[in-house]
Amino acid sequence: MADEIVEVALGEAFETTKKALMAVGWGEPEAAIQAEVMVAAETCGNNQGLVKMYQPQLMAPAPGSAAPVVERVTDTSSVLNGMQSPGMLALKAAVDIAITKSKGGVATVGVYNTSTSSGQLAWYGAQAAKAGRVVIITANSPEFVAAKPGAKASFGTNPLCFACPVEGREPFVFDMSTAAVALFGVLKCKATGTPLPEQSAYNAAGEWTTDVSDIHIGGGGGAIANFGGHKGVGLALMVELLCAALSGGAVLGQVESKKTAKSWGHHVIAIDPDAMVDGFAARAASIIQTVAASHPEGVRLPGDSSMAIAKINIEKGTIPVPKKVWDVLIETCAKAP
Amino acid sequence: MADEIVEVALGEAFETTKKALMAVGWGEPEAAIQAEVMVAAETCGNNQGLVKMYQPQLMAPAPGSAAPVVERVTDTSSVLNGMQSPGMLALKAAVDIAITKSKGGVATVGVYNTSTSSGQLAWYGAQAAKAGRVVIITANSPEFVAAKPGAKASFGTNPLCFACPVEGREPFVFDMSTAAVALFGVLKCKATGTPLPEQSAYNAAGEWTTDVSDIHIGGGGGAIANFGGHKGVGLALMVELLCAALSGGAVLGQVESKKTAKSWGHHVIAIDPDAMVDGFAARAASIIQTVAASHPEGVRLPGDSSMAIAKINIEKGTIPVPKKVWDVLIETCAKAP
Repeated sequence: MADEIVEVALGEAFETTKKALMAVGWGEPEAAIQAEVMVAAETCGNNQGLVKMYQPQLMAPAPGSAAPVVERVTDTSSVLNGMQSPGMLALKAAVDIAITKSKGGVATVGVYNTSTSSGQLAWYGAQAAKAGRVVIITANSPEFVAAKPGAKASFGTNPLCFACPVEGREPFVFDMSTAAVALFGVLKCKATGTPLPEQSAYNAAGEWTTDVSDIHIGGGGGAIANFGGHKGVGLALMVELLCAALSGGAVLGQVESKKTAKSWGHHVIAIDPDAMVDGFAARAASIIQTVAASHPEGVRLPGDSSMAIAKINIEKGTIPVPKKVWDVLIETCAKAP
Repeated sequence: MADEIVEVALGEAFETTKKALMAVGWGEPEAAIQAEVMVAAETCGNNQGLVKMYQPQLMAPAPGSAAPVVERVTDTSSVLNGMQSPGMLALKAAVDIAITKSKGGVATVGVYNTSTSSGQLAWYGAQAAKAGRVVIITANSPEFVAAKPGAKASFGTNPLCFACPVEGREPFVFDMSTAAVALFGVLKCKATGTPLPEQSAYNAAGEWTTDVSDIHIGGGGGAIANFGGHKGVGLALMVELLCAALSGGAVLGQVESKKTAKSWGHHVIAIDPDAMVDGFAARAASIIQTVAASHPEGVRLPGDSSMAIAKINIEKGTIPVPKKVWDVLIETCAKAP
């Protein structure tokens, strides 16, 4: 896919995305949050950016949806009913609550009943870390990932994100899928006709495949594999238990499928490091610098690559956007009521 | 190492271990906790069991050590100074605090300044889950694990444990090392003269090795590898940031080495699921059963193997103990003052 790329000024990318979201039915505050998340992803080279807007009607408010509602609350926890709002809005609200409630200690927030993925967890992790928090955020999703060759898919790609403030630099943000390849990686291979990475997926017969047409997300056989063998399965199951069992999302075995139940779950744990230790950010910086310098040629750590791409884009003030995506955004704005 | 094995009644194993610990200087309550942890490990086939008592003087109270002291406390968090007590005593105290403080919400507890490993985190995770909590426990340790081939060791084997209650069965306990092989795995290969697993360790030149004599824990080159490539490195770094930076343990770059600083760190997050959702244990059971049944031949999940071994031992009422370890325990008891 030799996509033509246009370089778009950061401010223009945000304003245009926001206007396009308003054109499909969002109010300005909701449009602004979603535009910020997608432009931020595009800025750091993440594949969950403006491509989400390629089919704008899919980004419109879901019929019968409403703003997330806090349903259960204690001094240290909240559970949000996402009311079928997009994951981006519900998780942003959840992280904001977790930041506030964890001041001087720890708080946990669950989210269920959202209609779409929240995009990269890294953005939400970075927000919490910029607010001074150490944070663990997890997300589950429909049945894409099988626990072993030939198994029925059970897990989503079930990402785990850890973020914290670091003295003298941007926050440390580690955002990993517990699957061997993220869903957007599969979609990208499909779009570009490239093979899947080795040992990242099974066909319907339960054999390893690199042929993306063997993978029928949501039924018909074939599935993404877990990363990292039995440890990866354990991590995916941990995420499932936090996001579905604990946060109120659709529970495997209690619904026909998570896909038809349309309830994506998230779980957030936020800790105020000042409650536990003096000078956390400096301590974190020392650890990260020491690990990074532990090899003569340096060690590349989680987030380094994203930070480097973001730095380049922010310095030149523009981001590269596939022209066909940008054209859709402009067209959508033009159709605004 | 064709060790002769003796079958010891569970009660006798506990009482003898407790007496041996009292003989090397512990009071009864501290001896009882450590005996319980080690006998439980032996019961489920874990390699951090009674073998710890093979050199009993190493298990004596460290000179100048004292009972753990709570140094910082908020409504939702505590930090324990381990006062150079063993990890088993400090982490048990931390988990007890986390269980109590998390009632109706969430709590976090850090531990630093302990003199030894706590043994398998699974035991502590199970205690919290039996008390009804969803729990994440992490631990760091001295420099055994290198972030890439040829790098200086930075991390401990930095395990991560997740546990939760499950309706109708024992708790779900997932306890993984973020290293390719656990420290006791290396020591076992050394003792038995067997090669290390493939791609689990580097020699001093930074090449993969399966020769355990290439690994000089604590200096001299060679190191254990992280599991799971860059994701494993990210997980190990997350554990390091939670247990050293956040919990007050020795910080890489701020000490000559964690080994000489002798400060092992732990971090506990406990959540009362009743604060967030109704029927958590039944929801967890449904998820676990569905994943386990997702393949016609079943899927083996974390903890299954340990539970099966423990069931056999508990039903027959005895545990297999290497005779040379048991002989040491008996001798140590005989020397009691």
